[in-house]
Amino acid sequence: MAVRAAVAGASGYAGGEVLRLLLAHPQVEIGTLTGNSNAGQRLGTLQPHLLPLADRILAPTEADALTGHDVVFLALPHGQSAAVAQQLGDEVLIIDCGADFRLEDAGDWERFYGSPHAGTWPYGLPELPGARDALEGSKRVAVPGCYPTAVSLALFPAYAAGLVEPEAVIVAASGTSGAGKAPKPHLLGSEVMGAMSPYGVGGGHRHTPEMIQNLSAAAGEPVSVSFTPTLAPMSRGILATCSAKARPGVTAESVRAAYEKALQDEPFVHLLPEGQWPSTAAVYGSNAALIQVAHDSAAGRVIAISAIDNLTKGTAGGAVQSMNVALGLPEELGLPTTGIAP
Amino acid sequence: MAVRAAVAGASGYAGGEVLRLLLAHPQVEIGTLTGNSNAGQRLGTLQPHLLPLADRILAPTEADALTGHDVVFLALPHGQSAAVAQQLGDEVLIIDCGADFRLEDAGDWERFYGSPHAGTWPYGLPELPGARDALEGSKRVAVPGCYPTAVSLALFPAYAAGLVEPEAVIVAASGTSGAGKAPKPHLLGSEVMGAMSPYGVGGGHRHTPEMIQNLSAAAGEPVSVSFTPTLAPMSRGILATCSAKARPGVTAESVRAAYEKALQDEPFVHLLPEGQWPSTAAVYGSNAALIQVAHDSAAGRVIAISAIDNLTKGTAGGAVQSMNVALGLPEELGLPTTGIAP
Amino acid sequence: MAVRAAVAGASGYAGGEVLRLLLAHPQVEIGTLTGNSNAGQRLGTLQPHLLPLADRILAPTEADALTGHDVVFLALPHGQSAAVAQQLGDEVLIIDCGADFRLEDAGDWERFYGSPHAGTWPYGLPELPGARDALEGSKRVAVPGCYPTAVSLALFPAYAAGLVEPEAVIVAASGTSGAGKAPKPHLLGSEVMGAMSPYGVGGGHRHTPEMIQNLSAAAGEPVSVSFTPTLAPMSRGILATCSAKARPGVTAESVRAAYEKALQDEPFVHLLPEGQWPSTAAVYGSNAALIQVAHDSAAGRVIAISAIDNLTKGTAGGAVQSMNVALGLPEELGLPTTGIAP
Amino acid sequence: MAVRAAVAGASGYAGGEVLRLLLAHPQVEIGTLTGNSNAGQRLGTLQPHLLPLADRILAPTEADALTGHDVVFLALPHGQSAAVAQQLGDEVLIIDCGADFRLEDAGDWERFYGSPHAGTWPYGLPELPGARDALEGSKRVAVPGCYPTAVSLALFPAYAAGLVEPEAVIVAASGTSGAGKAPKPHLLGSEVMGAMSPYGVGGGHRHTPEMIQNLSAAAGEPVSVSFTPTLAPMSRGILATCSAKARPGVTAESVRAAYEKALQDEPFVHLLPEGQWPSTAAVYGSNAALIQVAHDSAAGRVIAISAIDNLTKGTAGGAVQSMNVALGLPEELGLPTTGIAP
Repeated sequence: MAVRAAVAGASGYAGGEVLRLLLAHPQVEIGTLTGNSNAGQRLGTLQPHLLPLADRILAPTEADALTGHDVVFLALPHGQSAAVAQQLGDEVLIIDCGADFRLEDAGDWERFYGSPHAGTWPYGLPELPGARDALEGSKRVAVPGCYPTAVSLALFPAYAAGLVEPEAVIVAASGTSGAGKAPKPHLLGSEVMGAMSPYGVGGGHRHTPEMIQNLSAAAGEPVSVSFTPTLAPMSRGILATCSAKARPGVTAESVRAAYEKALQDEPFVHLLPEGQWPSTAAVYGSNAALIQVAHDSAAGRVIAISAIDNLTKGTAGGAVQSMNVALGLPEELGLPTTGIAP
Repeated sequence: MAVRAAVAGASGYAGGEVLRLLLAHPQVEIGTLTGNSNAGQRLGTLQPHLLPLADRILAPTEADALTGHDVVFLALPHGQSAAVAQQLGDEVLIIDCGADFRLEDAGDWERFYGSPHAGTWPYGLPELPGARDALEGSKRVAVPGCYPTAVSLALFPAYAAGLVEPEAVIVAASGTSGAGKAPKPHLLGSEVMGAMSPYGVGGGHRHTPEMIQNLSAAAGEPVSVSFTPTLAPMSRGILATCSAKARPGVTAESVRAAYEKALQDEPFVHLLPEGQWPSTAAVYGSNAALIQVAHDSAAGRVIAISAIDNLTKGTAGGAVQSMNVALGLPEELGLPTTGIAP
Repeated sequence: MAVRAAVAGASGYAGGEVLRLLLAHPQVEIGTLTGNSNAGQRLGTLQPHLLPLADRILAPTEADALTGHDVVFLALPHGQSAAVAQQLGDEVLIIDCGADFRLEDAGDWERFYGSPHAGTWPYGLPELPGARDALEGSKRVAVPGCYPTAVSLALFPAYAAGLVEPEAVIVAASGTSGAGKAPKPHLLGSEVMGAMSPYGVGGGHRHTPEMIQNLSAAAGEPVSVSFTPTLAPMSRGILATCSAKARPGVTAESVRAAYEKALQDEPFVHLLPEGQWPSTAAVYGSNAALIQVAHDSAAGRVIAISAIDNLTKGTAGGAVQSMNVALGLPEELGLPTTGIAP
Repeated sequence: MAVRAAVAGASGYAGGEVLRLLLAHPQVEIGTLTGNSNAGQRLGTLQPHLLPLADRILAPTEADALTGHDVVFLALPHGQSAAVAQQLGDEVLIIDCGADFRLEDAGDWERFYGSPHAGTWPYGLPELPGARDALEGSKRVAVPGCYPTAVSLALFPAYAAGLVEPEAVIVAASGTSGAGKAPKPHLLGSEVMGAMSPYGVGGGHRHTPEMIQNLSAAAGEPVSVSFTPTLAPMSRGILATCSAKARPGVTAESVRAAYEKALQDEPFVHLLPEGQWPSTAAVYGSNAALIQVAHDSAAGRVIAISAIDNLTKGTAGGAVQSMNVALGLPEELGLPTTGIAP
């Protein structure tokens, strides 16, 4: 029996990627699509790559249009999800691709987002310890941020195994789609092609508290995070270079063993063979996360690197994966682990 | 019952794309993969995006390794297909992604390729008049070149309807994957990023006689082709801008009507609504071809533009589509019409 | 003695490129810089690549701020130049990078721009027959459009020598900077990277009448132009592929001879050796235009291809070159013919 | 009186960039150009952007061809410089863009390069403490590596001022030109566009000991370096994100003050105003290095980020700047601090 899914915010990048994946999902029937300023337009004008849905017309993002579905994906600007969720009621599965329900600490939310905290929903990164259980049967899912997905998958095995000190240093490069579709001068093609540039340096990025939350939970102690995001001249992909000081006695072998153990049963997180490093090119459009880890004995650090597609595993793929878990479907159903290359 | 498929030349771009599509094909089981210089290596090293096949080892490209399959895809350098095909016998479906069997005229072959003509196989562009019938049940398929695919789909409706003079002018931009994976200085990233450059100007490109063959067949008279290919700073995609002088009495309406009629039943070739123009971004990884056509009354020309993914509809997707037709499977089976964007 | 120059519209792409070139000009002293919405801001914030001018503050674009200079470059939106010019008076050299004064035919202007025609100024493409003389000593210069620059330089020798029929077919690829700095969704990096897309197809582009004007003047008879511009995934550069039917008796040799003769004394327009084709990569940041031409005897056409940097030779470099001519300075003074590569 | 300069290795990226800069240098006359496999070819074929030198023919890289110049730039593969230098004698200024003479420690050289150590020459990064004095009047210069240039400029002020612990963590993104012009499969445009990928992870990159050497000298104690280089989808530019644990008592103000003091008199190293971060786009083709620094009090780290053009300040610009210092010319002569943007 088909799962009937609606997508609120179907004209944006996250909403479009949810639709791309749902079109290939064997159990899902795509219902209502909504937009705000784009309501009334053909999807074919807004998302010409979604050819099978070209003639669909966007409804306004209102509860009336979204009722009557088994699942509603919210791909809305921050701060709008709580009201929609309340109107839709407790029986529908709501999967929020926004930030509203990711953080557990209300103080963190208020500090980084500057508005009242809406609450906390089960966290849609099934690979984290305990997360899969919390998602099963849940009617609410908070999809993680793209950077926290990449970083948490790269580092949680090291923290869970006690290999490293609780001070993580992270530099991540993201494609421009992570910044969304709203036109801003610094996101113009003329500006981003040929350019690597940092932003939110020094702890200011909103994804920092989410990383701290995930890594601290894995470590069982507070972990500090120095996070520097950079914008790379590509549409999609995150490469996260993560490191922390190795604890005494840690060796290349113990690091490798810990990662193999932590990731061996994961369908989407793949520890590469030794000597092969992740590239964002290999996960373009894929829900896979590629991981490699090394022990730099001269510098005394463990370095873990992950590559994901920020829109797939980092957003919409994580959302559909969580939907599968929440609904009791096979976790991998309809989700590609094959990238598009070259 | 599964169709068992082998791929010869699995380490290249065409072979990799065939595998990407076959992985998503519900009726295909992937058998032997072969390589030449790469025989003995893990596919995961050579094609890290094909994660489900990462542990496959390439066999040498020899008939022994390729026997025992229902379909063999050949993604080999020009000139090698005939020998392999002969060894495999008449009962296996052989789909040649190379050029060897595309041309009907032996003189054209010898002039452009400088070697003896191997023969002519049914042409794997089902959308051309008569082509689908020739493919059904065939044990041999010559997959078209990427440029001829884009150009023929854009212009055959105009020639079939007698709208234009038999002198076509074509300028096409291709992503670099069309030039293959063999490393050459002018294909380095440092050289191609930020660069638009023409090549094979003045009739020298090997795809020219293939276009002439297709357009002349559609027109029922010899068509001359001025073809200028250009290399664009992107990995995938062909945008073909094609025009010819309008015949007397042609109007915007008659042009539109001819294209609508010619393309209305095609599952993969999509005439866009008036005013919307094709972009390669909308067909990234998709087997769709997007078409638009206009009548420039001031210049007296019909302009037809097509966008395809050179590796999908332009090579591997066309190959799988032809396999479906040849085997009597539904033509669309396993083939995406959704692109990856942004 | 220094030439004192002001730039109106210093925060945009054209204005920024004018400043980049003036900084390297040995006879120019940079005076007032103005902006509209950006008045009051540091140039270092808006144009961080212009490091020597980082601490300059933009004045509002008003005649008061612009008086007292020897040259005023206008890099303003269409329709604003006439009023500014009138206020500045007849004694100052005004070089308009906008379209307002390019067209000779008021009807063409009104048809393509939808507003009253402001007039016609000497045309800043010194390489065209007669243009250099008209610029010498002039106090007014209309800088050509970027596409007309590329196309006119590629085709005027063929038309001036009577080699081709008066029906030109042009397909040009432009970097995104040609579309300016105002943020629009389709110009986002996420949209343009990996994408080739046409626009203004079928005669609608505003540069079409300008090309017709230039080519008709060279031919001495009306020339029709079929012009298709495309947007390429790069910041800078235009590659223009231009062709027309060869007249009877034309040969490869006669074509080559005509181009050699027409271009031999030009400091910025370079006919490449036979067999070498222009690439935009070779003119990145350079005021050079690279040209190659071929005779396709099978298709019966002459094909001329040019590569320029749309912001340098196509806008700001053409402006400074014209300034040199107008002021009686050496035409090449301060202008690079060396590109930045790779 | 002109300085007569030869360039050995004129067909590669480093050699080409040296020539681009020398063409704009008012005191330099360009003499012999040499190549290895390309000897005998026109430079216009190999480096079409160097239009003023297009008709130059490359001589073989031999001492005979290189004698009789005031300066010889060596842009050769590692290991070839010592022999050439010995043949040219002690009176000519030799500027080696390769690695051969950068390291002081013979053991480091042998460990990272696997060959006997050729020696140590004055280090061509005048901004480092003491370096300018050592370069003045020298007849030998070892041009720094591109990554060590970016990293040393970003971090030496922090180490010289004792602000941070001697454990640096560095993640840097480089354009592909840093990998040179020799064609390798992973450097193909098809592979690098859309891809961020790390390499040499865990201390293996040959530039690591050079960074350690520079930062340890600045700190006056041994500094460990965790260095992860990544390849970014652009031709040029390095963005280096560098951090180290802040020492007790360090504040945002003390960090800012130390950087202002260290960099205030440098003509090419520019500390950006607070709140503005470096982008590689702003230094494209420029010899400037843009720096910004922050104190992340939550994570307890000082983060310094630099952007340079790897071929300009990171190689050829550093070489010409060092030539100026060595010859007693004004240090800034002929070197651009203006980038090409957008």
